[in-house]
Amino acid sequence: MRSRLQQKIDNKTKPLGALGRLETIALEVGVIQNTLSPSIQKPTILVFAADHGLAEENISPYPKDVTWQMAMNFVAGGAAISVFCRHNGIALKVIDAGVDYDFPPDCPIIPAKIARGSRNMRREPAMSLGQCEEAMTRGRGFVRREAENGCNTIGFGEMGIGNTSASSLLMHRFTGLPIETCTGAGTGMQGEQLEYKKRVLKEISEKYDPATPLETLATFGGLEIAMMTGAFLEARSRGMVILIDGFISTVSLLTACQFDPSTARNALFCHLSDEQGHAVLLEHFQARPVLQLGMRVGEGTGAAVALPVIQSAVAFLNEMASFEEAGVSNK
Amino acid sequence: MRSRLQQKIDNKTKPLGALGRLETIALEVGVIQNTLSPSIQKPTILVFAADHGLAEENISPYPKDVTWQMAMNFVAGGAAISVFCRHNGIALKVIDAGVDYDFPPDCPIIPAKIARGSRNMRREPAMSLGQCEEAMTRGRGFVRREAENGCNTIGFGEMGIGNTSASSLLMHRFTGLPIETCTGAGTGMQGEQLEYKKRVLKEISEKYDPATPLETLATFGGLEIAMMTGAFLEARSRGMVILIDGFISTVSLLTACQFDPSTARNALFCHLSDEQGHAVLLEHFQARPVLQLGMRVGEGTGAAVALPVIQSAVAFLNEMASFEEAGVSNK
Repeated sequence: MRSRLQQKIDNKTKPLGALGRLETIALEVGVIQNTLSPSIQKPTILVFAADHGLAEENISPYPKDVTWQMAMNFVAGGAAISVFCRHNGIALKVIDAGVDYDFPPDCPIIPAKIARGSRNMRREPAMSLGQCEEAMTRGRGFVRREAENGCNTIGFGEMGIGNTSASSLLMHRFTGLPIETCTGAGTGMQGEQLEYKKRVLKEISEKYDPATPLETLATFGGLEIAMMTGAFLEARSRGMVILIDGFISTVSLLTACQFDPSTARNALFCHLSDEQGHAVLLEHFQARPVLQLGMRVGEGTGAAVALPVIQSAVAFLNEMASFEEAGVSNK
Repeated sequence: MRSRLQQKIDNKTKPLGALGRLETIALEVGVIQNTLSPSIQKPTILVFAADHGLAEENISPYPKDVTWQMAMNFVAGGAAISVFCRHNGIALKVIDAGVDYDFPPDCPIIPAKIARGSRNMRREPAMSLGQCEEAMTRGRGFVRREAENGCNTIGFGEMGIGNTSASSLLMHRFTGLPIETCTGAGTGMQGEQLEYKKRVLKEISEKYDPATPLETLATFGGLEIAMMTGAFLEARSRGMVILIDGFISTVSLLTACQFDPSTARNALFCHLSDEQGHAVLLEHFQARPVLQLGMRVGEGTGAAVALPVIQSAVAFLNEMASFEEAGVSNK
């Protein structure tokens, strides 16, 4: 299929290779869908929100309440991800994976609370194994429902004050890279604040020695990250195109790959985040992101902004004329 | 206006600066339109097509007939630019600036032929001063009509076998950079072919010593490049947002800047082309392109693929909630 797709691309009315990265995107989508005529159907972004006990340790400049406030902002239409989904024809669903707040009953946030946030991993593992497994199972369920509803292209975003810390620890454990390499500014830790964050994460990384991927995820992860991990696994098993957002999304993919290494085969890396560690992580996956816009907002925004570019790639593969069809002389 | 726009951006519900390049795009569009609430109205791409006498010298791997064949492909909907404009809500108009072919009368290509191609500049200047001025005037007229029709955002593409050669010579003249730095593969000249192209262009660059911008454009340019130059000047004078495509488009902007240096103020640089010389040229303008997709197809494709990203930037500026509006705690 790969070589047949390449042949179809090479016969389009343009110099060989002249559509650059769009050609490889079209090829990747064709390979994932195993067809010469791929299509993007009902593109959807699921945003998982949860709180982190570690936020007590002041590893973010924002207060923990921002998690629930931003989740409300997502469904009210005022957040970055809301705007980008609305403009780019993407269905947006916001899932409460474990926010420490009682959302009003009429609020369109989908309830799936495992707990009112993970625990403070400076003192104890973030989740029990049971909580972690349950979060993964629920994440799978959300993707299954989207797939059954006709969606074949899905991205995952997140909201959770403290979740770059959890992601840095998971990246450190799963790649073996130094925790310093994996730790960045998050929503804006700089100078002494950032040094402090690094010290706290180093201390936590040395405190535990989990053996299995599930234990590692339960120890250092978060409820939204565990749910995303399950979501990735389900999306792969259903042959969906998976839009990879920024740092936390990519760490969740990395985590999913510990359970099923083939998960990355369905991934389209949408954006190079400005968060320290993301560039290294993309190298780990030998991935070239579609966009490099220097964003570091999470929520799935990198995936949402990249989708029209991916759609342009799919469209040229389906709709451009060949030299023969157009009566254009080839060299 | 710049500081008021920055303040509006900084109050949006996201960490400071976290939308990266999208924030500077929103700022640039706001400054061009001199408003806190910019908008993209009737986005349009004009593609100018013309032949080049220099094509006789085998400086392209494609035969000259490809110019008219591709122009027909543009309006038939089968070319890359046709597909991207259709999918991204962009009006596409194709203008015959000087193609050496009689298009059928029912063909939607807009007739504005100055001549049946420019002359072979290895022997004589590409255009007379009168032809060059007339082309610029017609280019201005096409933009004026779009502006009067409500378009406030415009991009320019081109088609013309041989036009990277003309562009390299203009870049060399207007920047003072060595002709070798300005000369690249075009649609696919490699190895000895590329060395030959460089030798021919060096010979031509040493043959003439035009004094004024108009003389330089007439000597080394092409009919589509002259028309684009006029189009840039008109778009600037009408305060339009100008979407800059790849190498030839950027060289035409550079040419327009010789007539009115303020033209670049309205430019949004959409894509870093893979054509040699484009990166250096973007540095000359201190420009950061929106996309880096490694395309090198011209036609306006870089502008057409980038537009949805630019629209995402404008949308967040207009539609995202502030911290106060959304009831989200700031740090």
